[in-house]
Amino acid sequence: MTARPRAFIVVTGSELVRGDRRDLNGPFLAGELLRLGVEPARISIVGDREEELSEALAEALGAADLCVVSGGLGPTHDDRTVELVARAAGVALQLDEELHEQIGAVSRGFAARLGRPYVDFEAGVRKQATIPEGALSLGLAGTAPGLVLERGDTVVVVLPGPPAELQRLWGKARETEPVRRVLARAQPPELRRLRFFGTSESAVAKALAAAGGDGDGVEATICARDFEIHVDLVVEPGAEGRADELTRRLVAPLESHLFSRDERPIEELVLDLCRSRGLTLGTAESCTGGMVAERLTSVPDSSDAFVGAIVAYADDVKARELGVPPEVLERHGAVSAETAAAMAGGARARLGADLAVAVTGIAGPGGGSDEKPVGLVFLHAEGPEGSRSADFVFPGDRSSVRRRATVTALHLLRRLLQQTRDESA
Amino acid sequence: MTARPRAFIVVTGSELVRGDRRDLNGPFLAGELLRLGVEPARISIVGDREEELSEALAEALGAADLCVVSGGLGPTHDDRTVELVARAAGVALQLDEELHEQIGAVSRGFAARLGRPYVDFEAGVRKQATIPEGALSLGLAGTAPGLVLERGDTVVVVLPGPPAELQRLWGKARETEPVRRVLARAQPPELRRLRFFGTSESAVAKALAAAGGDGDGVEATICARDFEIHVDLVVEPGAEGRADELTRRLVAPLESHLFSRDERPIEELVLDLCRSRGLTLGTAESCTGGMVAERLTSVPDSSDAFVGAIVAYADDVKARELGVPPEVLERHGAVSAETAAAMAGGARARLGADLAVAVTGIAGPGGGSDEKPVGLVFLHAEGPEGSRSADFVFPGDRSSVRRRATVTALHLLRRLLQQTRDESA
Repeated sequence: MTARPRAFIVVTGSELVRGDRRDLNGPFLAGELLRLGVEPARISIVGDREEELSEALAEALGAADLCVVSGGLGPTHDDRTVELVARAAGVALQLDEELHEQIGAVSRGFAARLGRPYVDFEAGVRKQATIPEGALSLGLAGTAPGLVLERGDTVVVVLPGPPAELQRLWGKARETEPVRRVLARAQPPELRRLRFFGTSESAVAKALAAAGGDGDGVEATICARDFEIHVDLVVEPGAEGRADELTRRLVAPLESHLFSRDERPIEELVLDLCRSRGLTLGTAESCTGGMVAERLTSVPDSSDAFVGAIVAYADDVKARELGVPPEVLERHGAVSAETAAAMAGGARARLGADLAVAVTGIAGPGGGSDEKPVGLVFLHAEGPEGSRSADFVFPGDRSSVRRRATVTALHLLRRLLQQTRDESA
Repeated sequence: MTARPRAFIVVTGSELVRGDRRDLNGPFLAGELLRLGVEPARISIVGDREEELSEALAEALGAADLCVVSGGLGPTHDDRTVELVARAAGVALQLDEELHEQIGAVSRGFAARLGRPYVDFEAGVRKQATIPEGALSLGLAGTAPGLVLERGDTVVVVLPGPPAELQRLWGKARETEPVRRVLARAQPPELRRLRFFGTSESAVAKALAAAGGDGDGVEATICARDFEIHVDLVVEPGAEGRADELTRRLVAPLESHLFSRDERPIEELVLDLCRSRGLTLGTAESCTGGMVAERLTSVPDSSDAFVGAIVAYADDVKARELGVPPEVLERHGAVSAETAAAMAGGARARLGADLAVAVTGIAGPGGGSDEKPVGLVFLHAEGPEGSRSADFVFPGDRSSVRRRATVTALHLLRRLLQQTRDESA
């Protein structure tokens, strides 16, 4: 059905294939390619051994329209990407005089700063300036050049491993003539996203099937991410009407759970709602230990609306710093709806915030009982015009309970802000 | 040099190859295999298209001693892993009666809970109970069986995609006779880790080279992770003496930066130091917005030592809740050594904590000036026996500055705890 150009992504790095570090470049490049209308067919992660990298390159050169290689461009002997790409493409290596000068200049700077003689760097400089015949340089990342070369029907892009450098030189690679030729054959699909909260992946899958399912130029992926359910639609040119219809039918039974059709993270939605209403915001956290505040302050300029948080882990901090009455703690316990409500009220008063959300729960693995099991979390959001509360027994381990509680707290704030906005409108 | 069995890991999932979701199974399996003495040679991530998965399987079956496949075991038509594994291995598929019963029982339960007729599930049940001739079942994850089969010299392990299920059934796969036979040929290397803080990857690389470098049965990987520098040594049987010598020489010039030879994260080291000295701990955070507290409370039973945090984002919260004198804020600014010191003192007093660390800085992208640029962070840790402070201009974006400040705050606490411990010893 699709005649999109196919891309292979080859990522090299011993620490990646051994699981010591998680690869970020494969997912980044895959997302970029998909948006440009190129099908990412495979991500291969290999070590820096010659045979592994050579095999992966040989497969890609045979099968892909575009092969993007990440990593292995350093100055030392175990960085062999350029040499092996040349061999796989069947072209010779040669010293590029211009690159030799550029890399030499950068390395002289390094040598001076480190107080070491330039001669120590010379072999590395020659190695990094030695590139396959006919390859285009994309400019340097540190002392490593990014490269583009063609071999038969495959365009090969060679990029450095550090993600920031890879992303910068990928931008340059896109502008080169060989890559533009591949992209000219690609028809960028339209990408649409629907985000739901408070429903399950299987409920959304069921609704999608009942709505007619994907196909006919619309591909749908359902993905639970950070406890939200995201539906991504990849819409081929000409299938926009079919996508509209599918969206309408999918959303109808899930309307109350749909909260966004864009990419803004929930913390940004909450802050935008606060700003638009001129409200300030704070948090009172026990089991989440500051995670709600951390999410909110991850947004640049969050200080416009967010004023602070009190993480009250110990009970006497709940009493002293949030003003939770000792008799509430005694009668209902620290993990209770009453304590959550008192924490939210206390945070508003102490922090001088218009709005506050409180979270108290049992993240585990210890501390649970029959009556109050691990995963039990009480949430309470309070603003000038009302409040909302909720409680759950979240499944999963400590980290999972804490992350779910954090996301739920943010959505509780969103609902409170939307409710009061709707009512006051 | 190494005669370790080679493993290929094949991960299938459209959302993974498209970069919508990051694969966790590849790194998990790679780490497991490495520990068992099997060399993870490649991780291939492919979508659920027939040709992509078939190609990846064919390559693995030719080249690997062990091929572990993750994902694509669901009941629907686009979950094709089992069928394609059978085809790649050249064996027929057949209905396994015992599995048919097991999966049927689970599905009847689902049907009842969902209030749907069992007949809706029947095709899926037959599909999931249909496995390659000669394959061993590892038991079910949901309704999907994990499988082990042999083809020539390759043992193939088929596991479900959800990470928790994959990890559970991988444990079972390890106990099967075919996998045990591969593992019997593996010589598990000894893995050693050295962790440094406050030095750079290149400084450690230089020290490693000066110490004689790796080789001769010791492989060293240097990896910056969460702003610490980790050196992982993979030590082949018989090379222990060489590893001891290399370690000694590597550590000598970096002694003051070496802080751990084990895997415990820094937040756990800090909590352990607090517990061993009977001290309680709190934080006062501005630019980190609760991240230090979040890290500390990620550790189970952290409530033994951690009492709480005050996230003082707005200046009047710094004054009111942490008691930072308004004249300090006015004269030195919220981002200053003086404010950090006052915040730490305030947190000790307000939270009733023996020890507190304070962080205040400019995370960016806005808010910087010539005098106080983005990335400027002041830290102050104070305990019953003394204090330590530090300031930095951290590079990178908002997230990077915040994460660096968080890790640095934890290490400042560690140094304060070790200093006072050493002095009082």
